[in-house]
Amino acid sequence: MAPKESEIAGGYKGVSRATTEKHMKQKINVGIIGLGTVGSGAFRILRDNAELIRHRVGVPVEVTKIAVRDATRDRGVAIPAGVLTTNPSQVIDDPNIDIVIELIGGYEPARELILAAIARGKHVVTANKALLAADGAEIHEAARRAGVSIGYEASVGGGIPVIKALKEALAANRILSIYGIINGTSNYILTKMTEEERSFADVLAEAQRAGYAEADPTFDVGGIDTAHKLAILVNLAFGAHVNLKDIYTEGITLISPLDIDFGKVLGYKLKLLAIAKMHEGGQAEARVHPTMVPDDYPIAKVAGVYNAIQIVGNACDDIMLYGRGAGSMPTGSAVVADVMDIARRQILIEPSRRAQPPLLELPAGNATSDAALALQPMESIVSLYYFRFMALDQPGVLAQISGILGRHRISIAQMIQRGRKQGGSVPLVIMTHKALERDIQKALVEIKSLSCITEDPILIRVEGEEP
Amino acid sequence: MAPKESEIAGGYKGVSRATTEKHMKQKINVGIIGLGTVGSGAFRILRDNAELIRHRVGVPVEVTKIAVRDATRDRGVAIPAGVLTTNPSQVIDDPNIDIVIELIGGYEPARELILAAIARGKHVVTANKALLAADGAEIHEAARRAGVSIGYEASVGGGIPVIKALKEALAANRILSIYGIINGTSNYILTKMTEEERSFADVLAEAQRAGYAEADPTFDVGGIDTAHKLAILVNLAFGAHVNLKDIYTEGITLISPLDIDFGKVLGYKLKLLAIAKMHEGGQAEARVHPTMVPDDYPIAKVAGVYNAIQIVGNACDDIMLYGRGAGSMPTGSAVVADVMDIARRQILIEPSRRAQPPLLELPAGNATSDAALALQPMESIVSLYYFRFMALDQPGVLAQISGILGRHRISIAQMIQRGRKQGGSVPLVIMTHKALERDIQKALVEIKSLSCITEDPILIRVEGEEP
Repeated sequence: MAPKESEIAGGYKGVSRATTEKHMKQKINVGIIGLGTVGSGAFRILRDNAELIRHRVGVPVEVTKIAVRDATRDRGVAIPAGVLTTNPSQVIDDPNIDIVIELIGGYEPARELILAAIARGKHVVTANKALLAADGAEIHEAARRAGVSIGYEASVGGGIPVIKALKEALAANRILSIYGIINGTSNYILTKMTEEERSFADVLAEAQRAGYAEADPTFDVGGIDTAHKLAILVNLAFGAHVNLKDIYTEGITLISPLDIDFGKVLGYKLKLLAIAKMHEGGQAEARVHPTMVPDDYPIAKVAGVYNAIQIVGNACDDIMLYGRGAGSMPTGSAVVADVMDIARRQILIEPSRRAQPPLLELPAGNATSDAALALQPMESIVSLYYFRFMALDQPGVLAQISGILGRHRISIAQMIQRGRKQGGSVPLVIMTHKALERDIQKALVEIKSLSCITEDPILIRVEGEEP
Repeated sequence: MAPKESEIAGGYKGVSRATTEKHMKQKINVGIIGLGTVGSGAFRILRDNAELIRHRVGVPVEVTKIAVRDATRDRGVAIPAGVLTTNPSQVIDDPNIDIVIELIGGYEPARELILAAIARGKHVVTANKALLAADGAEIHEAARRAGVSIGYEASVGGGIPVIKALKEALAANRILSIYGIINGTSNYILTKMTEEERSFADVLAEAQRAGYAEADPTFDVGGIDTAHKLAILVNLAFGAHVNLKDIYTEGITLISPLDIDFGKVLGYKLKLLAIAKMHEGGQAEARVHPTMVPDDYPIAKVAGVYNAIQIVGNACDDIMLYGRGAGSMPTGSAVVADVMDIARRQILIEPSRRAQPPLLELPAGNATSDAALALQPMESIVSLYYFRFMALDQPGVLAQISGILGRHRISIAQMIQRGRKQGGSVPLVIMTHKALERDIQKALVEIKSLSCITEDPILIRVEGEEP
């Protein structure tokens, strides 16, 4: 039989040291602002796994204050008396609180609350990707000055430890590329569309009914949430912050089952990918768009609400991290891991050091450069491309289209023309060899103006080797 | 354009702090013992990524001594003059060396060298899974007493950060189960056997010619290497060490393409899995054997020399880490990540603390309990089972076999009888519902003695839900 936790704790010799040194804190106090999905998950974990957390940290970790908007709402968790407040200042101003967990999301008042907590010398843990993507530089700089840590593992990939991987586990690597499926809602919708050959609108409506998509799904299906998370990953991977507006962002709202099906025929899965690349010469790319991924790529097999991030480093080669990218307990797991890391590395060392910049915070990422990373403009990227044209079923159409592509230095790798419809429109699918985005866009304008083209052409970028 | 590394380093404000504090070390000196595949990878990374490592750590990390057996051998890397020695004591006794990297593998002299390095107050980084599995408790205890760290990320899963995941990223979780494909040679052989329907002996011979398998492949294909790595993972996951001999270990040498093929028909992939489970009541399992894994499990899709570890925690749910489980640079990446972690967390803090037990070392794992974790004996595990019997093609065979199974409380979920051969043997495949291993073994003995059974029955354990 396994030893009980109380036995384990008693038997662990490292703990006694931390607790017997007089200047060490005997307990870590945590305040939570926002008790929604992630907040209640973090609270549950700190409560239910308290014994295990205590002996892994060395001292107990206790939630002593929770600020919520509506103290009367039932969140399905029993909060001890005196812990709940509707005033976030009671968390931030409490001198006994060591770590503030911000989980209200959005820009304000989250930004102000985080900066106020930092100003009061508190470490901060947050899942707020929108805020970090926009104002990460300001927040990290404030934390550096105050000598506190910002934990944000929960901001990308839910329970998947991708922040720690980039900051620590892969720290010996020059990161060459990142491919991420980091929005569960979009991946759920694309998976359903693929498996059940249903339309975007149809699956979205179902996802909204099932609670997998918000009433206003724009952030998720428009790729904006993915871009926020990509900004955070790029910052860590390439050691400089990036302006959100420089990340080309295209969502999945125009995807049709027809293109998913053609992709299948050609050996690809359609995914909403966050892509970052650092080229030999130092040019960086960061972009979010629907992408055809070769079937045999591990990331192509990531289905439903799961997230996955593939990272290629110059030493480790390709690594993939896979798991639940959202949800109360998985995201709470990342929040509490940050709390434990900060407790062990920042708080449970001599008090004399606590007012100084955290020695153990890693220079990878945020603070490495004041200038934003210059990203390649979208028009200068090189990719493989998938086109679907709806064209009148008449002779000479292919000759016209391929003529325009050829004049723009775009060569065709594969072509599929399906169905015959006298006098009507049929799909003409073309997969290109590597081409320049600028040439692709110019060719598209010309092709669109052809009299035989009956609908706006569909353009989807393709990853992988030359076909 | 991305900032050059020199610019990044210059712009990073955190670094200057570490380097301007007078008591801080200005440089981390590293000694390497053993310059084989992993050693030369680690050396290359420390050399080629030196600038990046310097600004991520805060000070330069330099290899100042390398001990090898044969100083004249060409390893394809240029070693600076004065660095190479054939005497490992020159590494261990060098007062300027902060971290000793042990990469000679095996029990002795690796054990003695590691203990000597620890005794001299040096931190140790090692990839030596055989030694850690056998003598990990002794080594960790010695390190604890000496106040130094043991980094062993490279011991399991090559470049995959599974040790860090268990120690830190998933520290808020009670770990419920681990499924690992953690021997690249075996996975390569099983993948080839599956894809090309070839025999074990045939693929092994090819793998040996290609350098994917050793001349003596027993450690890999016999499951022993996998058991070593599982012992390390179990220690971290369940917080107690485990006796290697308690881990049931079965290799892939008896696997035939026929069983792989029947597995395919039934919806399973055959993998050599390391399995660990912690049940509600505190009973722990740890075992290594060929296992049929449902096709739709992410781990079923891990092909070739890749490794993957699926971890289920009570908060994060299922996480999978995937990547190159071996090789010079990927394993070197893990070695150097440990070196960087130790430099940042253990060395670049005040010298006054350096002689004490490492405050930041985590209590998860090794030191939590003196007693070895009691594992469930194999006979008491409950699993699904796949049987293949070679039986004479005559009436009544199925009745006899199913009668024996029934008497041992084993119920049949699926059955396949393929081919007809008057007077000869045909395969009879049976997939069971959940059954007790003890009952399975007893039934096997009885079935084996039936006159209609012409070969030793094949038994393969199956993971997944009840079929």
